[in-house]
Amino acid sequence: MDLQGSFHVYDTTLRDGAQQEGLNLSVADKLAIARQLDGLGVGFIEGGWPGANPRDTEFFRRARSELDLAHARLAAFGATRRAGVAAADDPQVAALRDSGASVVTLVAKAHDRHVELALRTTLEENLAMVRDTVAHLRAEGQTVFLDAEHFFDGYRDNRDYALEVLRTAAEAGAEVMALCDTNGGMLPGWVADVVHDVGAATGVRVGIHCHNDTGCAVANTLAAVDAGATHVQGTINGYGERTGNADLVAVVANLELKLDRTVLPTGLLSEATRIAHAVAEVTNVPSASRQPYVGTSAFAHKAGLHASAIKVDPNLYQHLDPVAVGNDMRLLVSDMAGRASIELKGRQLGYDLDQETEEGKELVGRVIARVKELESRGYTFEAADASFELLLVEEVEGVRPAYFDIESWRVITENKPGDEAASEATVKLRAGGARIVVAGEGNGPVNALDHALRLAIGQAYPEVAKFELIDYKVRIVDQGHGTDAVTRVLIETTDGSSSWVTVGVGHNVVEASWGALLDGMTFGLRRHHT
Amino acid sequence: MDLQGSFHVYDTTLRDGAQQEGLNLSVADKLAIARQLDGLGVGFIEGGWPGANPRDTEFFRRARSELDLAHARLAAFGATRRAGVAAADDPQVAALRDSGASVVTLVAKAHDRHVELALRTTLEENLAMVRDTVAHLRAEGQTVFLDAEHFFDGYRDNRDYALEVLRTAAEAGAEVMALCDTNGGMLPGWVADVVHDVGAATGVRVGIHCHNDTGCAVANTLAAVDAGATHVQGTINGYGERTGNADLVAVVANLELKLDRTVLPTGLLSEATRIAHAVAEVTNVPSASRQPYVGTSAFAHKAGLHASAIKVDPNLYQHLDPVAVGNDMRLLVSDMAGRASIELKGRQLGYDLDQETEEGKELVGRVIARVKELESRGYTFEAADASFELLLVEEVEGVRPAYFDIESWRVITENKPGDEAASEATVKLRAGGARIVVAGEGNGPVNALDHALRLAIGQAYPEVAKFELIDYKVRIVDQGHGTDAVTRVLIETTDGSSSWVTVGVGHNVVEASWGALLDGMTFGLRRHHT
Repeated sequence: MDLQGSFHVYDTTLRDGAQQEGLNLSVADKLAIARQLDGLGVGFIEGGWPGANPRDTEFFRRARSELDLAHARLAAFGATRRAGVAAADDPQVAALRDSGASVVTLVAKAHDRHVELALRTTLEENLAMVRDTVAHLRAEGQTVFLDAEHFFDGYRDNRDYALEVLRTAAEAGAEVMALCDTNGGMLPGWVADVVHDVGAATGVRVGIHCHNDTGCAVANTLAAVDAGATHVQGTINGYGERTGNADLVAVVANLELKLDRTVLPTGLLSEATRIAHAVAEVTNVPSASRQPYVGTSAFAHKAGLHASAIKVDPNLYQHLDPVAVGNDMRLLVSDMAGRASIELKGRQLGYDLDQETEEGKELVGRVIARVKELESRGYTFEAADASFELLLVEEVEGVRPAYFDIESWRVITENKPGDEAASEATVKLRAGGARIVVAGEGNGPVNALDHALRLAIGQAYPEVAKFELIDYKVRIVDQGHGTDAVTRVLIETTDGSSSWVTVGVGHNVVEASWGALLDGMTFGLRRHHT
Repeated sequence: MDLQGSFHVYDTTLRDGAQQEGLNLSVADKLAIARQLDGLGVGFIEGGWPGANPRDTEFFRRARSELDLAHARLAAFGATRRAGVAAADDPQVAALRDSGASVVTLVAKAHDRHVELALRTTLEENLAMVRDTVAHLRAEGQTVFLDAEHFFDGYRDNRDYALEVLRTAAEAGAEVMALCDTNGGMLPGWVADVVHDVGAATGVRVGIHCHNDTGCAVANTLAAVDAGATHVQGTINGYGERTGNADLVAVVANLELKLDRTVLPTGLLSEATRIAHAVAEVTNVPSASRQPYVGTSAFAHKAGLHASAIKVDPNLYQHLDPVAVGNDMRLLVSDMAGRASIELKGRQLGYDLDQETEEGKELVGRVIARVKELESRGYTFEAADASFELLLVEEVEGVRPAYFDIESWRVITENKPGDEAASEATVKLRAGGARIVVAGEGNGPVNALDHALRLAIGQAYPEVAKFELIDYKVRIVDQGHGTDAVTRVLIETTDGSSSWVTVGVGHNVVEASWGALLDGMTFGLRRHHT
């Protein structure tokens, strides 16, 4: 089945998504994201605007040799020719023609006021610019899509002209006319009405490009599809200017899982969660835990009320099986969760906290009390399963796993004039029966402590050489007090085969990090010794 | 106009919103949020579940004396009586009756499978539980709303029973039957169909309670209103379990600004942005910059493409005037923004970067080059206007403002056995012609450096005593390398009357913080000396 023919899933993360505040993508980033998008099975990847900035030009140059796409076709975005210049003589159009992309998506003004005020030309010339540019690119063998900018606002102000822009592009050979809600002010009912009318009045193939300014980007996109659009544009994680573009994963998941439409190659939707998070690693925009379908919280249950029922039947409390999008149902340890959550969590970790027995009841009670006390001090175990498991083990076995005994630590950070600041840590501890004193350097206090700690413990337990700290998150738990606040540190440690997250808390960010480091080492050592 | 009679804006931030992963509200937090919600003019504030946990019981107790609401009525949430117990004898129902709230919102099972599998009782007994509990509370003089849990799933599996639950509650005296998409799997068209049918089949007053699992919570809520619902439930910032509840501000802004319905007291919607961010300060859940209407990016423009047109007419590029929701249009300094953005930004800061003149062109070119170079190293000026202004001043006046000259600094953090870790900083600098050496203590390295720096500078410039560091944000710019990564620090400093944000970057988090601290001091001093 040729999905690219029947229905277009068109991703614009690398172009419109990159307009997001705080988001800066290198060429390498863009290539990495393109590979992820191809893994999701989207039909088209809009790579950027060749000729508009050196980064995008470089992306298309490298894409030719470095991007081997299994599913997607690469699209180059650009504008129609400048006023009063032949399309063939416009260097910007030439850059599109020569980009190597098999599709060119031309942005054209469809709103009369934009033509006059922003483009500063006549309505007639704008039509000629559309006609000439599309025709030129088609003659050069390009597939051409049209992005009708500000279409919905233009339709409201001057329906005839907005429709004329679409007709002109279609007659010149553009295959898809994507209606853009560039300012994002539309609601689903309005989008549906306009898409219906455009189809009836022009007969062109309609695409849809929505932004989330009313919080309805996904619903607007679905409304357009319901009204006849067969080409949807969006971005991974809903990246984009202002409130972002339509979240392409949510759009696709709704189409496939809710509306029974096949828009991706079979089986690839189950990669969505992994891919959405992988892309977030590249963009370094922290994933929104509440993100539909792929968020870490999207299928998580907290309330004790629910947890007891989930034990009976998970489907009572989830709208679909998270496996369909590669996500999973987690239970959160929290002082809002009842005994059922703790019991379930314990079972997931391999402990049978049978509440029928007195010991089981009493044990779960102790764990809940500990969790509540620690969470009241700023700890969280929702994201730190390894620290929670250590707590659970301590309560089950009556003693906390210990492989070393810290005597003291110290870290100094100072600036060498004209040089970067440097940190140096000293750690004194007992392990394997010996007293060990080690110094470690680092380009930050926690980095130095991490090096010193692993050096010291490594003398007794060589396996820690394999341990590596792969993620470090600092959060001010008690905002508004500047550096005085309580800080919470989450650390992710790996042994190469798997990774685990631990938590530390303290008024001192270094002390909080130290606590998380110790838990990380202890958890890893326990895994190798049991 | 009695909005509470004609249309209900019902906030459940304190109850359903509090179910969000990682969100923990103290009683004081809940009281503070309730005051903010009242300032927004919502008709109802659901405070929690008295009797279910001590925190919520305490909230309602203190609310009686400490909450003086101008617009909202307080609602207590709770369940129908237990099976086989008279409502009057059920302590949980008694807690609702005695909570002091003028409205009780009863959650009732409307899905037959939930009655049998989760509630473990008969369908008949569940109806009796609804009837008895509503009747008992009405007899006690309470206004009663019904939350029909899992209504949409229940309607699909057993329409007759779901409708019978609503009729039973209405006949017993419940005023509003809120249809809950508890699992959040609905799409707008489905919600509209069900709400239409419920209204036609039962004639009850319908409310709507949506979750965002399909990314359509706002659109689903609007679809229900369009189909006849006159009571909308949601939460500030869309807080809630899994993907969250319907974002009440987006719902209300769409109703008032897009659909011309009056649902809040006149003028209060323009408080929405301030209130949404104030609540985020209390919950300590960082605000989503992309949040519709109230996000810091919601009306921000980045692309150079747009900036040039914005100079012509802002309304060409925004779907409405941000003032309507108390937000504002910002322009971001970024290597994607063209000269027009820099010129506009400069003008906002009081510098006329006239690009007609050669100097103006050349100057803007220099600024863009500096910004690009610094952003490539991990700086960002989008959120750090003060650091950008210092950069601009340096380029305009040819020299960077300098009030002190750093010689060196050092900070030591060590753990006192059995005690919290402590930090001690030494700062050596020249200011006001004197060499100053000062030590400062703190409960963290940056805190200690901040104290020492202000102590030292204060000897030459007493006004810095007024300066205070009120927010501190650390971000790993280059994730995935643990503590090795480049860190970016944003610091907000206040002089009591206003505040400014500065940025620092470095491999060493302490060095990055130091850079931001220096900018913060310099910007504040310049403000007092010019």
